[in-house]
Amino acid sequence: MANPPLKGVISYPITPFDTVTGEVDLAALSRLTEDLVAAGSHAVAPLGSTGESAYLREDEWDAVCETTLQTVAKRVPTLVGVSHWSTEGTVRRARVAARNGATAIMVLPQVYWQLTEAELERHYAAVAAATDLPLMLYNNPGTSGVDLRPETVVALARKIPNLTMVKESSGDVARFRAIRELSDGALSVYNGNNPVALEAFRSGAVGWCTASPCLVPRWALELYAAATGGDDERADAILAELLPFLQFIVGYGLPRAIKAGLQIQDREAGYPRTPLLPLPDKETERLQEMLDHLSAHPLVDSTA
Amino acid sequence: MANPPLKGVISYPITPFDTVTGEVDLAALSRLTEDLVAAGSHAVAPLGSTGESAYLREDEWDAVCETTLQTVAKRVPTLVGVSHWSTEGTVRRARVAARNGATAIMVLPQVYWQLTEAELERHYAAVAAATDLPLMLYNNPGTSGVDLRPETVVALARKIPNLTMVKESSGDVARFRAIRELSDGALSVYNGNNPVALEAFRSGAVGWCTASPCLVPRWALELYAAATGGDDERADAILAELLPFLQFIVGYGLPRAIKAGLQIQDREAGYPRTPLLPLPDKETERLQEMLDHLSAHPLVDSTA
Amino acid sequence: MANPPLKGVISYPITPFDTVTGEVDLAALSRLTEDLVAAGSHAVAPLGSTGESAYLREDEWDAVCETTLQTVAKRVPTLVGVSHWSTEGTVRRARVAARNGATAIMVLPQVYWQLTEAELERHYAAVAAATDLPLMLYNNPGTSGVDLRPETVVALARKIPNLTMVKESSGDVARFRAIRELSDGALSVYNGNNPVALEAFRSGAVGWCTASPCLVPRWALELYAAATGGDDERADAILAELLPFLQFIVGYGLPRAIKAGLQIQDREAGYPRTPLLPLPDKETERLQEMLDHLSAHPLVDSTA
Amino acid sequence: MANPPLKGVISYPITPFDTVTGEVDLAALSRLTEDLVAAGSHAVAPLGSTGESAYLREDEWDAVCETTLQTVAKRVPTLVGVSHWSTEGTVRRARVAARNGATAIMVLPQVYWQLTEAELERHYAAVAAATDLPLMLYNNPGTSGVDLRPETVVALARKIPNLTMVKESSGDVARFRAIRELSDGALSVYNGNNPVALEAFRSGAVGWCTASPCLVPRWALELYAAATGGDDERADAILAELLPFLQFIVGYGLPRAIKAGLQIQDREAGYPRTPLLPLPDKETERLQEMLDHLSAHPLVDSTA
Repeated sequence: MANPPLKGVISYPITPFDTVTGEVDLAALSRLTEDLVAAGSHAVAPLGSTGESAYLREDEWDAVCETTLQTVAKRVPTLVGVSHWSTEGTVRRARVAARNGATAIMVLPQVYWQLTEAELERHYAAVAAATDLPLMLYNNPGTSGVDLRPETVVALARKIPNLTMVKESSGDVARFRAIRELSDGALSVYNGNNPVALEAFRSGAVGWCTASPCLVPRWALELYAAATGGDDERADAILAELLPFLQFIVGYGLPRAIKAGLQIQDREAGYPRTPLLPLPDKETERLQEMLDHLSAHPLVDSTA
Repeated sequence: MANPPLKGVISYPITPFDTVTGEVDLAALSRLTEDLVAAGSHAVAPLGSTGESAYLREDEWDAVCETTLQTVAKRVPTLVGVSHWSTEGTVRRARVAARNGATAIMVLPQVYWQLTEAELERHYAAVAAATDLPLMLYNNPGTSGVDLRPETVVALARKIPNLTMVKESSGDVARFRAIRELSDGALSVYNGNNPVALEAFRSGAVGWCTASPCLVPRWALELYAAATGGDDERADAILAELLPFLQFIVGYGLPRAIKAGLQIQDREAGYPRTPLLPLPDKETERLQEMLDHLSAHPLVDSTA
Repeated sequence: MANPPLKGVISYPITPFDTVTGEVDLAALSRLTEDLVAAGSHAVAPLGSTGESAYLREDEWDAVCETTLQTVAKRVPTLVGVSHWSTEGTVRRARVAARNGATAIMVLPQVYWQLTEAELERHYAAVAAATDLPLMLYNNPGTSGVDLRPETVVALARKIPNLTMVKESSGDVARFRAIRELSDGALSVYNGNNPVALEAFRSGAVGWCTASPCLVPRWALELYAAATGGDDERADAILAELLPFLQFIVGYGLPRAIKAGLQIQDREAGYPRTPLLPLPDKETERLQEMLDHLSAHPLVDSTA
Repeated sequence: MANPPLKGVISYPITPFDTVTGEVDLAALSRLTEDLVAAGSHAVAPLGSTGESAYLREDEWDAVCETTLQTVAKRVPTLVGVSHWSTEGTVRRARVAARNGATAIMVLPQVYWQLTEAELERHYAAVAAATDLPLMLYNNPGTSGVDLRPETVVALARKIPNLTMVKESSGDVARFRAIRELSDGALSVYNGNNPVALEAFRSGAVGWCTASPCLVPRWALELYAAATGGDDERADAILAELLPFLQFIVGYGLPRAIKAGLQIQDREAGYPRTPLLPLPDKETERLQEMLDHLSAHPLVDSTA
């Protein structure tokens, strides 16, 4: 694991929709992206689950990719979620990402028809071969319908040279360590499950894939700084304040919760696309309280 | 359950791809569709899982819908699979289906983000309201990621007037009866699991959703005729001969197996789209033997 | 929902094993139970997942039930987890619970062979009929292998008079409200998912099923007091401090984490039974820091 | 893969219960076991899912093990299902099996609390070390709650010398070949999914784990003989006749269906234990027709 192209706080923007037309609001997306970079995100990752990529048309997908990457303008690395049911669709998105200057791509083993071992390997090999970009395998059984345990991930990575990163969201916190050990450190591990952020860093994860910086960027960054700077006490204190918020946004669904939070902050984001519905009023009030609490808290300077 | 708009053998065409370009081969699709109608299918159902709808671009989806429905030309009813992750995408497809003259639409509760009860209801209500067509709810946990048990299905149907049909593919054969009883017969039940075709009819299913007529249409039709005509012995005999084939096409995946069979029969279909790979040679040989066996068998006149 | 027999903080003891012999340590269990009552738990619930009931022999199960209930001695209500794969086994445990004076029983739809709707109903009806105790249905798809959505739960409850309580651990926080509304308030709802404790109370849950009082009882009780006493700010502040700990014990598995915590506190508990392994050293150190933090924190008087 | 201790038709007896008392009927079990041996089964496998081991008390489990193995009396090899949630319980059963002279043991990765990679390995290692018997890992996600894909299975087997066999019931027929290839032939593969019996043999499986010989032993044996003797046409013909029956017993659940069949054949078996209910009357009539059909069919001499 020489030097992974991504580490630290990898910020996942939501995709804003215009409240009236329902169309992607690229101007709002650009502003949000700029905010994420300006706040100090170590990387920006458009078109993940948070970005509602499942609900976008292909032309919208391309526009979101282009706008985000142009706004980032290589000031920090970018990781683009290119998963699609078909290999062709995944390859197409990977190339769009590459053409727009992405640093790396992320691929979920998204299955409609269950895949054989050969098909799974071929899919990853084809996507990996379509660009020169390093590829992050994203294991999230709840979303993809298939659980790739550490041995399977490591076996795949041995056959596919640019599969060098793994994002783990299965909920089994012991896998961060297991993947590193099974791969003799060849695979860099990332955490995709917000509430275990600190656990993951302490178990060797090099990055945290999170939508939380859309609302409270300093908190994620300070958590990372404390965790990697050896200030365990501060890391614990930050986590304690941040965790109810992380738990809340995961529990109610990232697009629902982050968009409600942006509205609270008077930033345009619109509503999630149906079938997702906006966060109900009562929960929005609670989110407001959480955000007020975090912004006023002396532990982290929210204006930094 | 006055008079459901669909019953009997509901034939699911695969979507042919050109072997060289990989593009949808509309001429081959039209020929296959014509074959299905000419053979006596009671209905034709494009764009199901069998039709690899998950792997199509939207423009391809529309073209497949239009070509299939124009070819059928209302000689028999049509059922169009319009499932999509977003409500907007599902509604769009439902309208394309309606505009092309579909008899009914089929909707899987396809979840990317897990849906609340309210979101699930809103999704079905929105899709149902988008057209005048009757709607078939398709329960297939293996594909959709969520299992809607009979009580949930019946509760949804009570709130959505044109949700009048349910396709069950959970594998629990006792549900055919359970859904009818729980809904006091208001819901018509269809079977989507090939190997339990006869069981389903005997448990009150009014239709069989099957890709088998792409290769051996007379067998499915004769099974239905025997099952509904009270000739149990003949139904059993037909099932005995047909079942290894049904088991095989399900076991290896319908797009893989049906396309291999069409090539054996010298009909154009191309290969499945990756990540699916063609049926391996050894399995293709076995399929050939099965098809030879069925076409030569005296029990069913394959040339009828 | 006149007056449910259980509400508030329902404390789940682990089952201590002797470090040398591996046998159930009833003396340690009695001390732990006494601690839970003395600390002010509103109810005690032996033999849940936390109690490693899956790993106990039947004679051990009976002994744990008897010891716990005798120790509680009706000072607070008790809820006994009696789930077993067979109806007979569940009934047997329900009767042992009743004989020992349990207030209520909890039953997971634990499936080895998948159950039909009729079998599920018969199972619950048989267990409910075996005693006069009120019954709590426990929905936890991750453990039971089946997800009973709100409509199914409510339909079951309508047929079984003493099925009056539901414990929801599916992770979908919107279900607390959905179950109450669908049942017109006839069903009392309980939360089994520690990290959403406050969310659940705010969504109408009347009780919180939690192992956390084994280690930090005052924190759970004060959270409940603040949440039901209308002191939202205090509830939020308590949750903020408590949540990293709740997240940790859930993430590493309750038996692993609670037993490690008891050892840190110099209370006998032994190790979890294999296949579970003790919490690793590094994680145990972190747990120690968390416990130190909570016990020294001015927000909650840990000595109360 | 020198010479696996088991091959061919591995017959799974149900566990008979007395119709009046509901207790295990050891005399009936002995008669059924004798029938299985007399009919030519290549091995006998008590206490699988078919044997309702999940619904037995431990003393019943031991009695079933002892009676079955004493009846077989080493005339053919035996494979005992020893799975249990706890390692201790699994080891105990493994030792009972060894003491009674079992040839091999079968272990499902039965999870109550999800297991880490380390716990999974330790569990198998402990069970394997408890006896000298060869161990068969049984992958059946529908029952165990966890899917061990081929790489994981092969990785486990590399660390545990007597883990030399794998029974695959995930439904993915391509895995028979995948496991053999990934293990360079070191692992012998068995099929646990009745309807794909012939597919499995043709993909390299050396044995078929099946309850069908309880009712129609000659059919399974002749299928194996034809499949391994190179008589493909006969194998296909046998499968055609047998498959509706195999599909039926799997679709309605093996204990329900096999017990109904034994009653049809005037052999004592009693009913399945609740929560399982007996096969309904209408389905029992159909089973009778299937059995009549098979017993009168000229293809296989049922009296051999």
